[in-house]
Amino acid sequence: MTAPEPDGTPPPDPEPFPPFEVARSERIYASDWCGLRRDMIVLADGSLQEHHVIELDDAVVVVPVIADGSIVMIGQHRHTHGKTHWELPAGRLLEGEAPEDGAARELLEETGYRARRLVPLPGFYPTNGISAHYAHAFCGLECEPAGEPDLDPAERLVVRVFTEREVEALVDAGRVRDGFAALALLYYWRRRPG
Amino acid sequence: MTAPEPDGTPPPDPEPFPPFEVARSERIYASDWCGLRRDMIVLADGSLQEHHVIELDDAVVVVPVIADGSIVMIGQHRHTHGKTHWELPAGRLLEGEAPEDGAARELLEETGYRARRLVPLPGFYPTNGISAHYAHAFCGLECEPAGEPDLDPAERLVVRVFTEREVEALVDAGRVRDGFAALALLYYWRRRPG
Repeated sequence: MTAPEPDGTPPPDPEPFPPFEVARSERIYASDWCGLRRDMIVLADGSLQEHHVIELDDAVVVVPVIADGSIVMIGQHRHTHGKTHWELPAGRLLEGEAPEDGAARELLEETGYRARRLVPLPGFYPTNGISAHYAHAFCGLECEPAGEPDLDPAERLVVRVFTEREVEALVDAGRVRDGFAALALLYYWRRRPG
Repeated sequence: MTAPEPDGTPPPDPEPFPPFEVARSERIYASDWCGLRRDMIVLADGSLQEHHVIELDDAVVVVPVIADGSIVMIGQHRHTHGKTHWELPAGRLLEGEAPEDGAARELLEETGYRARRLVPLPGFYPTNGISAHYAHAFCGLECEPAGEPDLDPAERLVVRVFTEREVEALVDAGRVRDGFAALALLYYWRRRPG
């Protein structure tokens, strides 16, 4: 079954399936923060099946790297599960905001650091079974302190700089429970742009 | 600011913040597939701020590895964004189902393969800014064909076996756009249990 490509060449993307026809779509909820709709999709036999879709603005996540290789993390409380974990600066894009601008903004707001250079890492769909929500990932190189964090009143977080080895140990121990942060860090270590 | 731990020791988790008091909680939507509620949380100055929470059953994702090291992937169409990408078998846990059982079930249903051994990888919160949804990750070792995929009528996917090198090339090219799949693969490569 395996047909290896020449070393290092990724295989082509799968043949795209045709989209499902949507017989009707019901708006369940709309707000600035999230939306929810229920599409009735047409199956191969002509019957209908409901498919919920959660609507969220796209997001950014940044791996903030200081010149000596250490990494700025935030210890953030999340109301959703009530726990506080080490994460990376991340957040939603504002309307019309370019991903790189959003990354620089979230980095500054949440940590007080500014990156001399933002280098794209691969982006991803965090939950594409239920949402088209997309996350743009960056690493921020040569980060330097540029002020104090400017937090939303509903953000509870602390900023801390760790050595790269410490962050690797956190990830390898499975203690970076936030998927955005774990994935961006692992991409950073595979690519290690410089 | 950096206080390095002895080599290889992860730093402690951040000091947990106290949870927000919830003044009231409004149920916006409930269904078997997802729920949505709006909590009014009490800020430090006593004012209220809305915080939406999306409710989803926890999920599993599996890296299916064949004895020769090759990896089983699925090329899956997602109604949410309309595209077809290489992913890994994944899905929601059934009510009361243990994560390992759910992983074995999704692996068999989506690929027709069975693993001789399921080894846990670190789990993660895919979107903990808005949901407590949690993903349990596994690698399935010594996978063998055990039948044909048994797909839900709304699942459109193809099964294909790639060499490990091909999968690495896909990930490094940023072409595994599904966050569950990319993160589980990267954890697999860092841990490489066996």
